[in-house]
Amino acid sequence: MGTNIFTVMSQLATEHGAVNMGQGFPDFDTPRPLVDALARAMRDGHNQYAPAHGLPVLREAIADKTLDCYGHRPDPDTEVTVTSGGSEAILDAVMAVVHPGEEVILLDPCYDCYEPAVEMAGGTAVHVPLDPETFAPDWEKVRAAVTPRTRMLVINSPHNPSGAVLDADDIRQLESLLADTGILLLSDEVYEHITYDGRRHESVLRHPALRERAFVVSSFGKTYHCTGWKVGYCVAPPALTAELRKVHQYNTFCTFTPAQLAFAAMIRDEPGHYRGLGAFYQPMRDRFRAQLEGTRFRPLPVHGGYFQLADYSAVSDLDDAAFCRELAVEHGVAAIPLSPFYRNPPAGQRLVRLCFAKNQSTMDAAIERLEKL
Amino acid sequence: MGTNIFTVMSQLATEHGAVNMGQGFPDFDTPRPLVDALARAMRDGHNQYAPAHGLPVLREAIADKTLDCYGHRPDPDTEVTVTSGGSEAILDAVMAVVHPGEEVILLDPCYDCYEPAVEMAGGTAVHVPLDPETFAPDWEKVRAAVTPRTRMLVINSPHNPSGAVLDADDIRQLESLLADTGILLLSDEVYEHITYDGRRHESVLRHPALRERAFVVSSFGKTYHCTGWKVGYCVAPPALTAELRKVHQYNTFCTFTPAQLAFAAMIRDEPGHYRGLGAFYQPMRDRFRAQLEGTRFRPLPVHGGYFQLADYSAVSDLDDAAFCRELAVEHGVAAIPLSPFYRNPPAGQRLVRLCFAKNQSTMDAAIERLEKL
Ligand SMILES: CSCCC(=O)C(=O)O
Ligand SMILES: CSCCC(=O)C(=O)O
Repeated sequence: MGTNIFTVMSQLATEHGAVNMGQGFPDFDTPRPLVDALARAMRDGHNQYAPAHGLPVLREAIADKTLDCYGHRPDPDTEVTVTSGGSEAILDAVMAVVHPGEEVILLDPCYDCYEPAVEMAGGTAVHVPLDPETFAPDWEKVRAAVTPRTRMLVINSPHNPSGAVLDADDIRQLESLLADTGILLLSDEVYEHITYDGRRHESVLRHPALRERAFVVSSFGKTYHCTGWKVGYCVAPPALTAELRKVHQYNTFCTFTPAQLAFAAMIRDEPGHYRGLGAFYQPMRDRFRAQLEGTRFRPLPVHGGYFQLADYSAVSDLDDAAFCRELAVEHGVAAIPLSPFYRNPPAGQRLVRLCFAKNQSTMDAAIERLEKL
Repeated sequence: MGTNIFTVMSQLATEHGAVNMGQGFPDFDTPRPLVDALARAMRDGHNQYAPAHGLPVLREAIADKTLDCYGHRPDPDTEVTVTSGGSEAILDAVMAVVHPGEEVILLDPCYDCYEPAVEMAGGTAVHVPLDPETFAPDWEKVRAAVTPRTRMLVINSPHNPSGAVLDADDIRQLESLLADTGILLLSDEVYEHITYDGRRHESVLRHPALRERAFVVSSFGKTYHCTGWKVGYCVAPPALTAELRKVHQYNTFCTFTPAQLAFAAMIRDEPGHYRGLGAFYQPMRDRFRAQLEGTRFRPLPVHGGYFQLADYSAVSDLDDAAFCRELAVEHGVAAIPLSPFYRNPPAGQRLVRLCFAKNQSTMDAAIERLEKL
């Protein structure tokens, strides 16, 4: 394992004063009521260990939010666990159930923490490519990758890095693929509240045949514009939750107490925030896409999340890593190359990922620089 | 792995309204300047991802504090890593360097997260008993436990649960034991600033022959009365730090940004706080010890940390787990039994651990109940 690409590109952005459209974090203020609730919790003295699984009031709020969004209320006591960010939850889940020699199917491109988690558990990652244009899974290819050693399949919708979103037909095919197997599912849904054009997020938690075998991971960082707060959670059936908690209690043990109180209040008092997040981002996606169309970068379709893929074939022949370096150093825009998201990057692919969770002025500055290429 | 003893006893304390002298957390207010600095950092908009290794300003402050306390300044860029609590640092360190089949020597009794970390890495824990009266290591026994597969030795001073503290002679013996071996050291020093009667904390960071092979873990929770904030760190030489960071970046990735700014300011502006922590706790240890001497519990010597062991042989014949349950349920005092800190608890040992990081009124309430036994 080397240093991950987000760290590398953010360092480069800082060194060269590049507009940072790389690492996925928003430009917007964390909601003031959330900040105030956190400050109040500290001043009221809630500064000691929370219960390892999370404060009951937050687990209740997560259960209520899940009901509100997906029509199903997990049991806060036995099915909800608060973690120090979505990434801790992913590592905990994988460590909890993947044994040495077992296989975990990943759909490439995928977020870069899945494979290290599998390796740390002593398992083997099996990579199945997504469609190179639409980034949709080919479920027959996934089925063909299943072996008697397959322990888990990892899915991620809305998808990082592509912005693809699973639809009802994907869910049906996934259900049929998993039926009569003991394969577990890890569903990374950290962009759950960000979908576009009226698309519905097909959370695994909507679907009984899937959720009964799934760890569903989410995070407040993306939803509440506070990626640096590192509070996430995992919803899973009691038996899986029990296993995950064993790892969690010997990993971070528990998570920043005052933030747990603040998120509980925020979820309860302002459900409009998470319900409206797609509508909040929609104009940014639309505008950024339109702006890119005025450059020689070709934007790909985005259905969820806050990343825009752009094809730069018309701009450069460099491979994506070299191109992103040049883009940051010479042209003042930090983007993320796509190859680190693959075991085997498709030959000749010329794609970069740009984060559009940014103020208009940040985006305008980036576009102005990209237009020159 | 089951649910850990701290969670079990805190739940029991809550259910039965017992005075919670079990789980190790203080009763005191988090320093107001620290709380205010954190609130300010949030309001100033420092709410997105910190660099994975920690904010430079905090790593600098940790390096300065280390110089102030131990006469050695680690390089903040290559030797200091901020983690989501000391426990994450311990798991990261073990996962980073212990390979399947390798052995890690633990000195029993010991804190309960070491062995699960070793197991998650695929290693084997080898348990060497500390002296049952003084809780000092018998270095000849440790030497006898070394095999060609020994990868790491874990030490912890001031010691949880016993309050024992390693002295200069221990350090000499440890140095001689490790000389000419490739054995790594994991030194858990989360109670580094809490020692009594003028004893000096023999941090591994004072001793070149030790620190060159060591992960030294600490935490702000114990030092700043905020165990629920979960910010810790690890100091280790560059090669070990590089390995630890690989795990850390795929575990929690980074730690709550506003707290990092707050701790950096607190360390810089109020060094008196950590320098004076032993003096802050000394009267509590003295008073609690004297109060216990007025009961039928026999207090053992405590040289550091904020735990008091007490022998209850004169009170009950129950084993420690059953006794702690009875103590919480029937007598309204939650304590921690010692057996969970051992692979093989010594037969007939009748010890409980009481946390004295408590207000006078809390301690008085506990003593009043213990006096009745
Ligand atoms: C944890 S840093 C990476 C942030 C992120 O989710 C991304 O950029 O994909
Ligand atoms: C992480 S809960 C345990 C707290 C503690 O350090 C102890 O009680 O020993």
